[in-house]
Amino acid sequence: MSERKGLVIVNTGDGKGKTTAALGVIFRAWGRGMKVCMIQFLKHEGGSWGEVRAAEKLGIDWIKTGDGFTWTSRDMDETVAKARHGWQAAQEKITQGRYDLLVLDEFTYLMSLKWIDSAETVDWLKANKPAALHLIITGRDAPPELIDYADLVTSMDKIKHPYDVGILAQPGVEF
Amino acid sequence: MSERKGLVIVNTGDGKGKTTAALGVIFRAWGRGMKVCMIQFLKHEGGSWGEVRAAEKLGIDWIKTGDGFTWTSRDMDETVAKARHGWQAAQEKITQGRYDLLVLDEFTYLMSLKWIDSAETVDWLKANKPAALHLIITGRDAPPELIDYADLVTSMDKIKHPYDVGILAQPGVEF
Repeated sequence: MSERKGLVIVNTGDGKGKTTAALGVIFRAWGRGMKVCMIQFLKHEGGSWGEVRAAEKLGIDWIKTGDGFTWTSRDMDETVAKARHGWQAAQEKITQGRYDLLVLDEFTYLMSLKWIDSAETVDWLKANKPAALHLIITGRDAPPELIDYADLVTSMDKIKHPYDVGILAQPGVEF
Repeated sequence: MSERKGLVIVNTGDGKGKTTAALGVIFRAWGRGMKVCMIQFLKHEGGSWGEVRAAEKLGIDWIKTGDGFTWTSRDMDETVAKARHGWQAAQEKITQGRYDLLVLDEFTYLMSLKWIDSAETVDWLKANKPAALHLIITGRDAPPELIDYADLVTSMDKIKHPYDVGILAQPGVEF
């Protein structure tokens, strides 16, 4: 067994920190000079998030495929089409072999909402993911097939959240 | 109530992602041009971690106070003394008002191992933390006083870990 292995990491659960921990790995990998690509599903195209600004400054590839979260979406068909197109874009990036680390942010929703098939998606990854590529997938409700396939799965669970006591999301910390 | 409030964030639990999510917030805050300081307790001074390299490149203040995890420590008194000295250094940074975001990494252990008193520590924070300062504290077994004081508490819980199947920690991803 080789020491170097591309890990499949899943950050799931209902709490904060799923995307944030993926950003932490990006920070760490960038520190080691690794080639990194972030592919964001569902998140708003127009957002000027702290992480997007950081990625721009650092020259990290950052692809936004979505038009916002489904529950704020005015045109559901377009949301689904964009998400599926995003998965095709991700498949290209995965097979290209240009990256050491790829993050598929909020990707679980495509499977949990049945826009793409979980078993087919995992089978595709098993057949096509380069052995050395680290892959991080975030989002709630990670399907069992994905958990089965992954090397590292963490559930981020809420114990206490500031929204509960009426504190708004703070720039630079939560987005 | 003002929209801008310095949040107290606690990342606890037995899983991966506590420090990593703090790194993600650092990445995000740096992207917004915020002033950030990381204070690491217990972690090895000698380590050349991906995140330390990234922080050096980005000019993020990074203070290592420890001499390694307690369970690998050959000289326990020195470990305790270094940790307590680290807390003094952190107190200075907190009251100085030079930062928008301060991370106290692995800080919970000082309280759970009774090297410093949890209630006193939280009382000190209540009296001295500038209102606008965001503070992130990581580590297992966050004491109840800290959870009570915090605005946002997340438990990172292990569902599956690669060590379980004999896969070693991968550079750039886990350190």
